[in-house]
Parts: sequence; C-alpha cells; structure tokens
Amino acid sequence: MSILVVGSVALDSIQTPFGKVKDALGGSATYFSAASRLYDQVNLVGVVGTDFPQQHVQSFRDWGVNLDGLQVAEGKTFRWSGRYNYDMNTAETLDTQLNVFATFHPELPESYKESEFVFLANIDPVLQLEILSQMHRPKLTVLDTMNYWINYRKDALTKVISAVDIVLLNEAETRQYGNTFSLIRAARKILSLGPKALVVKKGEYGAVLFSNGGELTDSFFFAPAYPLEKIQDPTGAGDSFAGGFLGYLASRSSTAMDDIKRAIVHGSVVASYTVEDFSVGRLGSLTRDHIQKRYLDFKRFTNFEPTCPWSEGCPHLANHDTGTESH
Amino acid sequence: MSILVVGSVALDSIQTPFGKVKDALGGSATYFSAASRLYDQVNLVGVVGTDFPQQHVQSFRDWGVNLDGLQVAEGKTFRWSGRYNYDMNTAETLDTQLNVFATFHPELPESYKESEFVFLANIDPVLQLEILSQMHRPKLTVLDTMNYWINYRKDALTKVISAVDIVLLNEAETRQYGNTFSLIRAARKILSLGPKALVVKKGEYGAVLFSNGGELTDSFFFAPAYPLEKIQDPTGAGDSFAGGFLGYLASRSSTAMDDIKRAIVHGSVVASYTVEDFSVGRLGSLTRDHIQKRYLDFKRFTNFEPTCPWSEGCPHLANHDTGTESH
Repeated sequence: MSILVVGSVALDSIQTPFGKVKDALGGSATYFSAASRLYDQVNLVGVVGTDFPQQHVQSFRDWGVNLDGLQVAEGKTFRWSGRYNYDMNTAETLDTQLNVFATFHPELPESYKESEFVFLANIDPVLQLEILSQMHRPKLTVLDTMNYWINYRKDALTKVISAVDIVLLNEAETRQYGNTFSLIRAARKILSLGPKALVVKKGEYGAVLFSNGGELTDSFFFAPAYPLEKIQDPTGAGDSFAGGFLGYLASRSSTAMDDIKRAIVHGSVVASYTVEDFSVGRLGSLTRDHIQKRYLDFKRFTNFEPTCPWSEGCPHLANHDTGTESH
Repeated sequence: MSILVVGSVALDSIQTPFGKVKDALGGSATYFSAASRLYDQVNLVGVVGTDFPQQHVQSFRDWGVNLDGLQVAEGKTFRWSGRYNYDMNTAETLDTQLNVFATFHPELPESYKESEFVFLANIDPVLQLEILSQMHRPKLTVLDTMNYWINYRKDALTKVISAVDIVLLNEAETRQYGNTFSLIRAARKILSLGPKALVVKKGEYGAVLFSNGGELTDSFFFAPAYPLEKIQDPTGAGDSFAGGFLGYLASRSSTAMDDIKRAIVHGSVVASYTVEDFSVGRLGSLTRDHIQKRYLDFKRFTNFEPTCPWSEGCPHLANHDTGTESH
C-alpha cells in the first residue's frame, strides 16, 4: 500500500509556557508524514518557497517520504505564528503569511494516483475536491479541515465530506459544522452526509469514533489521551494523529471497523509523542519500538474484564467470570 | 458487607434547557443511596426537616435503605436551587437554604459502625472526620468534597484526604486543590497525602483513575462517559457515580486495583442513567439488568485486541496477533 497526503509544509514560530521556536519545520502535511512514515510509504503533495531550508528537505528524505509531488515555487514558504497559554487545548494565531501557499494548486505525479490511502489535510476544500478527482479508486479517503473553511467554504466542504470515507475533526469544529452544542447530534448530521465514520479529536480528553448505521452505541469507540506530565507544544498533535491513524490502516491494508478502532489508538500514541517537544523534535526520531510500547499502555488504560457483582449471577455477562467465588 | 453514607438529603429546584422541577428529591446521600442500593445494603446518615414529604421516605424504604441514621429535626429540609445552560457540565447555583442542615451533627447508630465501606459525601470536612473517628475499622473509605470546602476548610479537608483510602473529585476541584492547571501534577499532590487512589470525574469527558506508587502510567485507567443523545438533568451524576463505584466494591468485598477499575465503569454506568431524567426519576427505578447492559457497552467502547502493523513483527506484542497474515 501507499499513502498520499496533501497539505501544508510550513515554517512555524511558536510560543508556549515552556519555550519558543522560530521558523521551525511545521505544517499539516509535515506532521502527518513524520508520523505515517513509520507505517508505510508516504507520497507528499505540497508547496514550499525557494527559502525552504535544505536541512528540512533532508528530514523528509531521512523519513523515506516521496517528494515528487512537492513543488518549489518562487517566493517565500508559508509561515504560521502562534501562542499557547497554560490551557494547551487552543492555539492563538499571532500571524499567518500564506506566501507561496496562496496560489498553490496541487498536481499529482502519475505514480501518486495509485495511492490507496489518501489524507486530505486542512486546505481549501475546493483543492481537496480537485485531488479526489485525480485519484484512481483509492481504498480509503480521510478528510481534515478547520473553522475557517466551515465559515467561508461550507458548500465545497460539504461536498468533500460527502465524498470521503472518514472525517477527522476536533470537537469545536464538529459542533460548529453541526451548528449544535450536542456533539452527538453534530456527529449525526455529519454522518448523514455519507462518510462511514467520524473521528472527533478532543485534545487532552482523547478521541472518539462515531460511525454510520445502526444504533449510535453499536460502534462508538473511545481512546483517552496518553497521560503526560509535561506537554511542550501541542502543534501538530491532530495531523500526527491522522498520520498514525491512516498509517496503521494502510499498513494493515484494512478499512474494517475493528481496525479503525485500533487506528484511533495508534493516532493517540503518535500524538502523545508529538507534543513532548517543539516541531518534529520528538516525532521525527520515533521508532516502531516507541509506538509498540505506548500502544500496550493504552490497552492497560482502558481494557477491563467484566465480572458479575451479584450472587444471583449476571445473565448478560454469561460468558464472563461470575464472581461468585468472592461471596 | 454493608455501605455507610453520610451526606445531604435535600429538596432541589432545578432548571435545564429541557425542563424544570420544584422541591424534587435530591442531595448527595440520596443519589448515592439510590445507586448503591442496587449492589448492597446501604446505611444512611443525614438530616431532614419536619416538612420532608412522606413519599420520599417511602422511596428510600422501597430501595431497602436503612434510615436508622436519618435524623428528623424541627424546621425545614435543606433546599438547593440551580440552573444549567446548554453546557451541562457546570451548575449555576441560584439559591441555597441550609435550614436543618446548618446545625447537623452526624450520629452513628451502633449497628452502622461495623459498615465496611464508607462514603463521606460532600459535607463539612470537620463532620467527615467525626464520622471516621466513630467507625470500627472500615475496609474502604471514600471521600467527596466541593470548591467551598477547598476555599474555607482546607486544613480540615487535608486531614480527611490523608485519612481516607480513595478521593473522588471533579476536574475543577482537583486543579483547585492542587493549585495547578496540570491535572497530573494536581493528582500527584493529592496522592502524596496518603490515599491509595484518586478518581477524577470529568462529566461528559468520563472519569480517570490515578493511583499511588510506581510510574503514573502503571495504574492509570480511564472510562469515557456513556454517549447520550439527550441529558435531562446532570444533578446527582457525581454522587450516583460514587454509589455505583462503592456499591460494586462492596458487593465484591474487594479493594483490589482491578476491581477499582471495574468500579469506575460501574460508576459511569449508573451516572449515565441518572442524567436521563430529573431527580431520581430514572435512577430510582433502575434494575441490575440495566446495569449489566450498559456495563457490556462500556467494554465495547474502549476494549481492543492489539495487532501488529509491521511485517517484521512486534516483539512488545509477542503474545498477540502479529497481523502478518494480512501482508
């Protein structure tokens, strides 16, 4: 299998209570690639300016990312500047300079069109639709977006949502798109447009899966965030979550619901490393060994074996420990 | 086993976006009892006024709750009035009339002193200490409190925290007591006082367990909130959570960490029913059958079987499906 990602490659300047960086490697396609390369071949589509440092190009090469689809345009690279306060769930944008990204028009190298797993990172939904139209029968398509496009491109965004298999949004975006405070009702609205699943990223509160068809509780799934004493920089958590999520599915070549659940755990594992350092400092040097270790931690965090607390027994738990020995 | 609870029995007047009630049965000891009676014998300690309706006394009797420790004092019953907006995580208190609760002084009937599982619901920590001093070697003691006591009785509260086995707090109280935005650092501070475990209730974001000793991730456990399309009234969610939590442990006569994890799931199950109606409308009529059904739902919501996404195998997942058949 291989994975296609289209999104931003950026130079980020970030302040958090624990430090700051200037013109560090960032962007949605960057974080996604730095995560998903641990699972499978990644084909990147994006644009940088002529000022983009060669060392960053080398980082992508070290990760084995295919850069045939990375355009180098005359001008400066997209720059984003943001700040987090102690509540690290929300960034305050200080400055956005689109630069070469303002006129970006994605073009897929012929070889990319066979990629079976596709991640449409947060860019103009009109461009996301263009990408989809160029692909040859992808096996799974996943979409991310942001509040800006919900406000100013809702019609195009609704078309992309209807066209993809899985939608990844954060909690505020889900409520905003659904125009309701109830996350569940917002999820229903999004799923009614056609995608088979919606994954809502809740930052420090974990991630949750809603899926189409049947009772809501039939396929509901939840993974908490990994408990971290110190978060350096939350930037890229969502995009690297997507990288672990889609990376896992691509490596298994699976779109089964049980694998989508495990993919949420992989996304959560990857994101937990991302936020431990600025930029791709931690994420970029991760190994599969790191992933495995925290993946097993997640199993301990949530899994339990049912027991029956009542001496008369538990018909609904018939195949489980009846617990009667402790009475 | 039997369970002792000391706390308020109240008449609540509540408004939510979905309706309102006036002088409905409420109070921390009420919600706790209505939940824990599904698991074991409950001995209640509290006070009501001479105006307390006989029908509410009958509700307790129907639940099989022992009322030998319920004082009836000259005067009016404790009344609380509150309002919730669409964000149902936080109540706005409109009015509090302590009435007979202002001079309440708990006295334990002799037979109560042998109760092995003790819940000190949210009352003045000075009274909580008095209760503890009257008990004969309880097997497990659990404490709840609120922001008021953290502000105005911190020394006494710290003494109770040091004396009990398990502390149950909501997220804001945990941060407030720990005087830090980091939930994990706040949890460490509380655990450093002696309790073996801290359970943080996060409302719609579920509940989390921190425990003493070893690495934080050794015993971390998480249960999400049950996904509900409609919440009528969140009042009593925390106290009924405590009822399911302690009820389960009492019924198993266990204080083992694996049972504490399952107890968190039971607490979450019970609380999910509580909020589906005003007062004890739903909770009061629950059966063990209801508990079992959602308990199994919770297993599906979070449990997953590890698989290995890489063809070279996963040494850390050695005993699990290597997943190589799908490559």
